[in-house]
Amino acid sequence: MGDGVRFTLRALADALGATLDGDPAAVVSGVAPLESAGPEDISFLTDGRYLAAARASRAGAFLVPDGAPSLSAPVLRATAPRLALIRLLRLFHPEESVRPGIHPRAAVAVEAYVDPSASVGAFAVIEANAVVRAGVQVFPFVYVGAGAEIGEDARLYPHVVVLDRVRVGRRVIVHPGAVLGADGFGYAPDAGTYRKIPQVGGVVIEDDVEIGANTTIDRSTIGDTVIRRGTKIDNLVQIAHNVLVGADSIIAAQAGVAGSSRLGSGAVLGGQAGVADHVTLGDGVVLAAGAGAIGDIPEGGRYLGFPARPAFEGKRIWILEARLPELVRRVRDLERRLEAIEQRTRESSPPDRESR
Amino acid sequence: MGDGVRFTLRALADALGATLDGDPAAVVSGVAPLESAGPEDISFLTDGRYLAAARASRAGAFLVPDGAPSLSAPVLRATAPRLALIRLLRLFHPEESVRPGIHPRAAVAVEAYVDPSASVGAFAVIEANAVVRAGVQVFPFVYVGAGAEIGEDARLYPHVVVLDRVRVGRRVIVHPGAVLGADGFGYAPDAGTYRKIPQVGGVVIEDDVEIGANTTIDRSTIGDTVIRRGTKIDNLVQIAHNVLVGADSIIAAQAGVAGSSRLGSGAVLGGQAGVADHVTLGDGVVLAAGAGAIGDIPEGGRYLGFPARPAFEGKRIWILEARLPELVRRVRDLERRLEAIEQRTRESSPPDRESR
Amino acid sequence: MGDGVRFTLRALADALGATLDGDPAAVVSGVAPLESAGPEDISFLTDGRYLAAARASRAGAFLVPDGAPSLSAPVLRATAPRLALIRLLRLFHPEESVRPGIHPRAAVAVEAYVDPSASVGAFAVIEANAVVRAGVQVFPFVYVGAGAEIGEDARLYPHVVVLDRVRVGRRVIVHPGAVLGADGFGYAPDAGTYRKIPQVGGVVIEDDVEIGANTTIDRSTIGDTVIRRGTKIDNLVQIAHNVLVGADSIIAAQAGVAGSSRLGSGAVLGGQAGVADHVTLGDGVVLAAGAGAIGDIPEGGRYLGFPARPAFEGKRIWILEARLPELVRRVRDLERRLEAIEQRTRESSPPDRESR
Repeated sequence: MGDGVRFTLRALADALGATLDGDPAAVVSGVAPLESAGPEDISFLTDGRYLAAARASRAGAFLVPDGAPSLSAPVLRATAPRLALIRLLRLFHPEESVRPGIHPRAAVAVEAYVDPSASVGAFAVIEANAVVRAGVQVFPFVYVGAGAEIGEDARLYPHVVVLDRVRVGRRVIVHPGAVLGADGFGYAPDAGTYRKIPQVGGVVIEDDVEIGANTTIDRSTIGDTVIRRGTKIDNLVQIAHNVLVGADSIIAAQAGVAGSSRLGSGAVLGGQAGVADHVTLGDGVVLAAGAGAIGDIPEGGRYLGFPARPAFEGKRIWILEARLPELVRRVRDLERRLEAIEQRTRESSPPDRESR
Repeated sequence: MGDGVRFTLRALADALGATLDGDPAAVVSGVAPLESAGPEDISFLTDGRYLAAARASRAGAFLVPDGAPSLSAPVLRATAPRLALIRLLRLFHPEESVRPGIHPRAAVAVEAYVDPSASVGAFAVIEANAVVRAGVQVFPFVYVGAGAEIGEDARLYPHVVVLDRVRVGRRVIVHPGAVLGADGFGYAPDAGTYRKIPQVGGVVIEDDVEIGANTTIDRSTIGDTVIRRGTKIDNLVQIAHNVLVGADSIIAAQAGVAGSSRLGSGAVLGGQAGVADHVTLGDGVVLAAGAGAIGDIPEGGRYLGFPARPAFEGKRIWILEARLPELVRRVRDLERRLEAIEQRTRESSPPDRESR
Repeated sequence: MGDGVRFTLRALADALGATLDGDPAAVVSGVAPLESAGPEDISFLTDGRYLAAARASRAGAFLVPDGAPSLSAPVLRATAPRLALIRLLRLFHPEESVRPGIHPRAAVAVEAYVDPSASVGAFAVIEANAVVRAGVQVFPFVYVGAGAEIGEDARLYPHVVVLDRVRVGRRVIVHPGAVLGADGFGYAPDAGTYRKIPQVGGVVIEDDVEIGANTTIDRSTIGDTVIRRGTKIDNLVQIAHNVLVGADSIIAAQAGVAGSSRLGSGAVLGGQAGVADHVTLGDGVVLAAGAGAIGDIPEGGRYLGFPARPAFEGKRIWILEARLPELVRRVRDLERRLEAIEQRTRESSPPDRESR
């Protein structure tokens, strides 16, 4: 895994901007998880819940946050340990450079433009009037439809489908099997059956977006479905037609956004979360895993449950519904005691009292 | 977007069967959404909730429902505005005609039949004894398995997989990445492990069905998994083995139907809805987004929640669970007050009274 | 369907180890579902809920469990009827033998190793240093990345993507469109945007695992995402990076397991079930369809609902939340009655009594 590279801890500390606590001449030759790291590996502790695992680890060194306790091996302390981890991983696993050129078994239309610095793999199809810009990597089995445009340094993994006229921004990464620009799901009822509404719009994926494996982003009826700059989308996510996802949002696996909904900037959808159609979520709305937004949520903050409610309220419901059996018992008890009192007070009420 | 075509409002009104309120000689050259339409575009208002957007729109004309209010530009009023919209979009975006023929880089088995009017794209595979009928469009990277049959004028988008012996009806549209006929998920427990039950049945997709991107429809154990005529299925939907989906149903994205379940005609599953295995839903059952049918629902109507309940009942639960904190407070209050009364009545009960 | 094969009931009983109740010389030529079977077919009743259908069936014979009642045609009684069904289906539908060899239109890197007994279909891509072992079936459009390894007798259906360095065990079956080894979803926040954490780990699929269509299993950040021996995964399932799924587990369609979670052996996730990140489920934990495990569940057993709770508790909540309207009424009634008593006891309390 370490590709034969070796670094002294001194060199690593310098490269990561980290403070070294330990022998600067010690050498590591790989990065490994806490559990499987050996004395020749550096490991990392970016999440406090793994402190016990770090203490039990045989790693030769650790990357840790500032202020983390000492461990049994040298530690590199970083102010932003996750950013330092990115650098650490890239040192041991540098990105492969793109081999430019079109594979002889690719099918590129004569009316398409492929920049000479781009790479197009075997069995890729680039249709007429498509544009593939500088530094793009098109893996095998990728389909780039007519008039589609792929921005500089984008990467389309095997089996990605980019349908006609879809625009993909710079440095966008699309994982295998993702489908950009399939028809939106729109029909007009007509005498008991449904007639298809042509979906003649497009899809715009802005710069620095990442799209997960087998995710689907539908083209708009007219106009564009839009994913704004910097947003990261996980696997098996559904983005329906006419949706707008704001910049720097996070959409976890199997979440879905139904037609014409709008997410603000910095939105977060947990795994399997859902947003109903024609719903607007404000900037910074966080929908927990499995939550369902069935109406607008203007205010940022964390929401959970189905229907989605502010987290504090939603959690209280979860706690109280678990106490429903007890609540029912208490009500039954109240009913019994009240019954008894009613009887007693009836017995001791004026007419009865007189008869005593 | 308008492909260079232009129409007078008079011509459009005639073509759509709409009543024109405005200058019949005015010309439009494209269809655009309310927000981005300019004076050269016609836009549309098929949903009342966008009236404010229509009033703010700069569109040169509008397609609206009968009875809609006047707007700042000419309006075409249609009795069935969504059907009129279909015609409008097709006028400006006519379907491209199919170029018949087999691409030289397709791999078609000699024992397969491909109608001369069908189109088979680059890197498509048609296995032995498969039949591809007149007018079918097979896009690149489509796999048509041995003995499969694709009906007249069907369209298989890039990366569609139709496994052996699956039958696809006429005018069926299958979006990229959909998989028809993978093995159903069936195992027999055997001493702590699972042994695969061969899935030797098929899949039948009837006429006019549409199947979304990356949707999966499994083959039956024996017999057929069946999707009846006219049903529309969105992206990332799971239809398990031995399922029957009735005619003219709508299944939204990420919904799932487990093994051996049956949906009636005109069923609707909202996004991320689920139907458990061996469940029967009657004609016209509507499962809201995220709802889960874990038992039979014979009666048509709208159901929501997990487990799915009649909409009225389900909504009442959502309202009341939000009031649980208040209910708990009321019960606590009752307990305190009752306690006080019990004490008082105990004090004032006959033995005590006498002692007073 | 029967491929021209015919068996006497005597021969079938012998092959299945079943007891025959009926004419041993009778002949059947196919296996069919209860509803569509004719006198020339054998059908089966492995699930008691279909007894009525079996009674109405026109099948010429039935495979049934020991102790099942007699039917209108001969029955073969088996102690393990589902295992007998496997044998029955294989008798009528034997597996096709693999035609070894590399299709001339496949693209196999010179630095790859493909065993001579393996089969590689048209338009398959095997990258450098990949290893494809004996008896493997690689269907068209499969991508096997650099350094990946496919174990003996594994089967990769059309459009399967196995990215670089992923290891697939023996007899593993991967259905169309599944993606093994896409990047895990990991980012470091950096001044309002997200920076990608390189995902340099791998995926290990152990022997006898089956993976459904369009399912995604992400590579680990470092180390491996692991699916242990014998586990069966359905369609459209998401397994995130750094996850460990124990042996002989069952994961139904559209379920998802978030990053770094661990499932024990013999776990079962129902359809659309979810496991949050960094969660541990013990051996034998069964999450019902749609359930969501948001925290550790050490103890085996059945759990349901969101958040997942022990089945008994979860079902009680479902029942009691349906009775919330009644509970609210009872509390309101208590309040009214208590109010009345409070008034009466206030009236009859010592000071008042004196005033009477």
